[in-house]
Amino acid sequence: VQESVHNAVHELQTEVSRAALTVPMIATRAGVTPSTIYRRWGDLSELLADVSSQRLRPDSDPADHGQLRADLTQWLDQFVDEMASELGLAMVRDVLGSSTMGKVPCCTYTREAVSIIAERAIQRGEATPSVDTLMDHVVAPIMYRIIFGGETISTTYAHRLVDVCLTNLETLTPG
Amino acid sequence: VQESVHNAVHELQTEVSRAALTVPMIATRAGVTPSTIYRRWGDLSELLADVSSQRLRPDSDPADHGQLRADLTQWLDQFVDEMASELGLAMVRDVLGSSTMGKVPCCTYTREAVSIIAERAIQRGEATPSVDTLMDHVVAPIMYRIIFGGETISTTYAHRLVDVCLTNLETLTPG
Repeated sequence: VQESVHNAVHELQTEVSRAALTVPMIATRAGVTPSTIYRRWGDLSELLADVSSQRLRPDSDPADHGQLRADLTQWLDQFVDEMASELGLAMVRDVLGSSTMGKVPCCTYTREAVSIIAERAIQRGEATPSVDTLMDHVVAPIMYRIIFGGETISTTYAHRLVDVCLTNLETLTPG
Repeated sequence: VQESVHNAVHELQTEVSRAALTVPMIATRAGVTPSTIYRRWGDLSELLADVSSQRLRPDSDPADHGQLRADLTQWLDQFVDEMASELGLAMVRDVLGSSTMGKVPCCTYTREAVSIIAERAIQRGEATPSVDTLMDHVVAPIMYRIIFGGETISTTYAHRLVDVCLTNLETLTPG
């Protein structure tokens, strides 16, 4: 059931606008009854949040380039591409629009990726900002600009945030 | 019409859940026809976004305490209280859930408040971070943690972000 409903949503999202999407329409496409969907997901916004958070889950760990700055900047380039895309934005909105806010899964995925990169750098013996510092001073400004400002994120800007964290290691990291 | 519809939304929001709220329900309470609402706002999510962004508009300029750090921390305490409240979160979600994303008004109000504080400090001759720096390294981390992390923001943490900006003035501010 889960797979056929998710696939129905994927298909319909390419055919109709978000505003036109309804639970009965998805049920028909998936070959289930609307009540099956309501029972499992509650309502349309919860279903869309579930589908989107599955899509936001990364396929693999961030690539290992043997150096913290390279790992961070290359992962960030991908992250920005994904989040600033029309699909990415719509997914983030679906997830945020769900009433079961709390810990939003796409935030958890992002934190996991950053943790993997930081952990590797520590293993290599590199001076490494805390995961909190990287989330606060690299990820947060980028997401805020994308989501609240509707801004385009340049590579120069994103990489500068990384450099800010790497060069202000002591003052940014809480005692 | 605008006022009676906004008032109807305010009243109904205290009586029914967001999921139960409908355009016909709002129209009845406001004494207008549903088509009036659809014509003016498009759909429910646009109407809620409009109501919420009006509520997020601050009543007055940030207070002037005669010193940059005091102005920032005191404004921030209020901002965090407001944004982390149940109503604040619901409002931010309404605004983000609107399909006409782009420049989100509550982000504009925040930027305006920060600009007023920074401008005053410059007039006083204080060393002042740029508005971009304050948005990136104080406002963004707080909003990211509230919205994506569902976290509680402590005063200590919020004030530390202000201090990070004030003590790393040269490295944080782009050249």
